[in-house]
Parts: sequence; structure tokens; C-alpha cells
Amino acid sequence: MENTVHMTLAAATALISEALETAGARAAVARSVARALVAAEAEGQVGHGFSRVADYAAQLQSGKVNAGAEVRVEARGAASLLIDAECGFAYPALDAAIEAGLPLADSAGVAVMAVGNSHHCGALSVQVDRIARAGFIAIMVANTPKAIAPWGAKDAVFGTNPIAFATPRVGDAPMVIDLSLSVVARGKVMNAARAGQPIPEGWALDAAGNATTDAQAALAGTMVPIGEAKGTALALMVELLAAAFTGSAFSSEATSFFAAEGAPPRVGQTLIALKPGGDYAERAEALLASIADMPGARLPGARRLAALARAEAEGLLVPQRLYDGAVALAAGS
Amino acid sequence: MENTVHMTLAAATALISEALETAGARAAVARSVARALVAAEAEGQVGHGFSRVADYAAQLQSGKVNAGAEVRVEARGAASLLIDAECGFAYPALDAAIEAGLPLADSAGVAVMAVGNSHHCGALSVQVDRIARAGFIAIMVANTPKAIAPWGAKDAVFGTNPIAFATPRVGDAPMVIDLSLSVVARGKVMNAARAGQPIPEGWALDAAGNATTDAQAALAGTMVPIGEAKGTALALMVELLAAAFTGSAFSSEATSFFAAEGAPPRVGQTLIALKPGGDYAERAEALLASIADMPGARLPGARRLAALARAEAEGLLVPQRLYDGAVALAAGS
Repeated sequence: MENTVHMTLAAATALISEALETAGARAAVARSVARALVAAEAEGQVGHGFSRVADYAAQLQSGKVNAGAEVRVEARGAASLLIDAECGFAYPALDAAIEAGLPLADSAGVAVMAVGNSHHCGALSVQVDRIARAGFIAIMVANTPKAIAPWGAKDAVFGTNPIAFATPRVGDAPMVIDLSLSVVARGKVMNAARAGQPIPEGWALDAAGNATTDAQAALAGTMVPIGEAKGTALALMVELLAAAFTGSAFSSEATSFFAAEGAPPRVGQTLIALKPGGDYAERAEALLASIADMPGARLPGARRLAALARAEAEGLLVPQRLYDGAVALAAGS
Repeated sequence: MENTVHMTLAAATALISEALETAGARAAVARSVARALVAAEAEGQVGHGFSRVADYAAQLQSGKVNAGAEVRVEARGAASLLIDAECGFAYPALDAAIEAGLPLADSAGVAVMAVGNSHHCGALSVQVDRIARAGFIAIMVANTPKAIAPWGAKDAVFGTNPIAFATPRVGDAPMVIDLSLSVVARGKVMNAARAGQPIPEGWALDAAGNATTDAQAALAGTMVPIGEAKGTALALMVELLAAAFTGSAFSSEATSFFAAEGAPPRVGQTLIALKPGGDYAERAEALLASIADMPGARLPGARRLAALARAEAEGLLVPQRLYDGAVALAAGS
């Protein structure tokens, strides 16, 4: 069992913010990134939380993340915004997208926010949850570095290209869906490869396109999409919406979200906010409550909400080495 | 080999239109339905084509489809429309949604069209293709009578709830995605049950939630979703967007699209049209062309486009019994 440090959400946000500021981020940017990472950590999505701080700092220092980025918001129409992240972090651009987009959705009934020249957007759940808490139905897609081959082909073209959705609930936190289009997250294969462990069949293919249980061979190959050709079709849809529609790099062109060297990943994210009308709230609530009541069933995001409630009440348990790393970064050492 | 009748698309449209008009549809409605069915038939989607004529006519005659429906279009915002199909056929409502929605998408950059109190919408590909041919990126979802259980539960709540997408291409027909969220269409299980054949494992579950290869047991049970819990999450997303957002019946409440008796199915469809900007056209084209060039790969919808081209050049081969049925309906016998 790894040593952990107990922190409040506010303390974790302050520490990450300080670490990134010392690494070169402007204060407002560091704060935005810290908030998003802590929100993901609080949801139990540790792969998008504290564990990213060191890599983010290194990318600031190498210039792969543009510390001078000024998020620009451009109207493409009364309900369509293009947000240029200018190769800085994704989170300040997502903040701007939601801040500028929701008033448009309120007046027009729908708004689309296309975030381009962006970076790792972390847990999409965090972003769609914010939109739903403001009273709107949210859809979000993002492209990510290549991992999935087109159906029938051997080489990766698409990222695991997540799709997220959130709906407001009556008297409850939003119901949030956040899923990648691979059978499992690529991080699980990376963990197995590091540990020298095999992976279950059905997770990944080797470079020749054959099923493999060898994690190293899987990393050199591709991830298996959900639903075979259907998953690759959805990944192509996400690629067009998140990359082409935002003027960003395709997954096949995007550099790593982890390594400090190389050009910026320049991926994109597209968000759609819909204003519910009529009896949407009551009807959605009736459906969600009826599913939650079914024996054996669980609403999507139930584990996430439980983790969030626990984190808000009790704070976070941060692995000691991640805490120490952030403290060292904050101290500039 | 079944006997077939060779028909031009125009002749097929005229015959179906006449059959539905004789069964009680107004001329404009009959024409709209006939166009959509023939478009699906031409794409090779025969389950949404000529084979529906007899059931549609019977539902007109029983009153399950409201022959007096007047499609009403209501603005919910500058870019959001609610279209009430008034328990008539879906197609005139979809026509109105696209006709009224695309000018909004052109000025606002995005538009959402929520079609409520609707009926079987046939091949979603036909609708998103129309939007893409007008220069917009299209997303469409529809709910359908219950077939998929929430993850962990035994009873069906969601339909196979299709998702469709289309993008305009440069100098080519749109690239169209149209997929249901079950591993296979329920029609394949119905065909197997009729033929007394078993079904492959992985298609369906029996009423107790166990895997089955018995087609009859599968019809009494549920369809397996793509990607396990991920597929059911997507089905829930579609349910909220297509049913709750449009003020329609949930899949669990919807009556059959086939049987003449019972209340109207009252399902819903939601369409989103996005106006592409910047270098979208060139970038999307580069991605699609690069995938089409990969050894072994095929773009989604390739088979559909080939069928469509063949049908436009050579006409349709309609099974004799469907042709005879439509002729008899048209003659009022």
C-alpha cells in the first residue's frame, strides 16, 4: 500500500496551482488547470488528476504547452463559437467556451463551442457536469492521440475519442456519461506493460492487427473499439467533430499528452449545450429514477458521484510521491 | 430465389404513394412517406423500405397513425425547433424539421430540431444525408420500442436507439454513419425466429438475462448492446435526447412499429445541424480520403453508396409479393 497524504480539495487546488505557476503558467491559467485536475481526482479519475501535474509542468518548461497562450473566442454565428486555445492548456479554453457559450444556448436554445489548438482535456465528465449544473443538456467529444484503427485496417488513425453527456436532474447532481470508444482505456494497457503483466484478450491488437495478450505488443498496435465497426464509425464521427470542426490536428497527427518534447498536440474538443423545454425535467427524472430502482441496474456515473461526495466530505488521499513532486515543483526545485 | 419486379425509383415512389393515399393518407403525406421508403430501399436498407408499406397502410386504417395529423413547428429559441408530428408518420415531420431548421443552422451556426409524437423514422441515413447534401454536418438520434436492458438489469428499457451522422464531402456524396446500439439489428433475430433458426451467441439475452442462441427466447429477452455498459450508457443518452427532449414516449412505453393495433408509438427523433467553418471541408476530405486509401479499410456507408448508385442507374428489384401488395392497396382491394 502506497503512502498517501490527506488534503482538502482547496489545498490540493492551491498546491497544483502553485506548482504550475512556478513552472511558468500565468496565475489564472494555473488556477484553471488545478481546478480541473482536482475535480477529476475528486471523481476518482486519478488518471486525469494529480498524476498529470509533473507532465504538465514539464510541457510548460519545454514550451510544448504555450505559457503565453491567450484564449480567443470568435463567433461563427449567433449560437456557434470557435475558441482558440493557442496551444496552451485545454482548461482555460474550456472555461471560456462554457462561460461564453451558455448564454447563447439560453437565448438560442442550443449552442456549439468548438475548442481548437487544444491540449489534453482530462475528464470530460468534469466539463459536461458543469454545463448540466447550469441547467443545460451537454454533449462533448474530444480527439486524442491515435490508438484505434479504421475497421479492416491495421494502423491507428483515431484516438480513443471519448464521448460525454450530462443531463440536469431534479434535486440531484447531474447524470453524467463519459466513455472512450475503446473497450478499455489505453492507460490499462500502459499499466500492464509497466508491470510486465499480460492483458486480457479483447482489449488490443498487435501491429499486424491480430489479437494479443502481450501488453508491449498492444502498445505497438491498436486498441479494440467497442462494437467492432460501429465503434470505429463513432470514432470517425468524433474525429470530424472534435478535430476538423475545430480546425485542430487529427488524432493521427497529435503528439503525446505525456512527453515533454515535440510539437503541441493541437487536438480539439467540441461541446454542445441544449436548453431543455417542456416537461423535460420531470420526464428525464422519471426515466432515471425508474432505472436506478431496477434490481441490478446502476445509472452511469454512480461510482463517480459517490467518489465526489466522499472527496467533498473527507478530502483527497494523494499518493505521497505525487504530493512530494508537486511540492518540489512549487518550490522551484 | 424470390421473384422480383423491376421498377424505377419514380415508379416505386408513385406506387407507394398511391397505396398510402388509398389507405387514407393525404397526398402530400403519402408522397413524403413514399420518398423516404424508396430512398431507404435504394440504399439497400430493405427493412426500412418497400417492406413497410403494408404495415403503414394497416396503421393508417386502424387509426394508429393519425391520418389527420398537421405537423406543427414551434420555435423554442433562435436555433431550436420543436416539431410535433401529431402521431402521424415521421417523414412529413422530418421534412418540416429539415426545411425549417437548416436556415436557422445557416444563420446561427447550429440548429437543433426535436421531432415529437412521432413514428418509425426508417433509415436515419436518409435524413442525415439530406442535411449533409445541403452543406451541414448532421447528427441524428431516435428512440425505438424497448429492446436493450440497462447494464446489470434484465428488463428492456431502451430501444436499439440509433445514432446517425453525416458530413458533406468535396465533390462526392456525403459520408454517412448510421448505427443501432445493439450488436445486431433486432430484425435479424426476428428473421431467425421466423425461420426456426438459432442465432449466434453474443446477439441477445433471454428474459432471465442469460446469453441465448434461441431466437424465440431472445425475442422474449433483450438485445446485447455494443460495448457492454458503454452501449447502454449511449442508449440512455439517446433516450433522453430523442424522447425526453422532444416530449415523446420512452422506448419502454412505445408500441410496435409493425402491429396495426394499439396506441400510437409516440417516439421521438432529434437532429442537430452544424455549419462547418474554416478549412473544415478540406480537412475532413483529407481524413476521409486517407482512410479510404488504407489497405483493408472501408469508409462507413460505402456499401450504402454503392447500392444507391446502382439503384439510381438501374432502378430497384422489388420482391413480387411486396409489389403485388402495394398494387392491391393502391386499388383499394
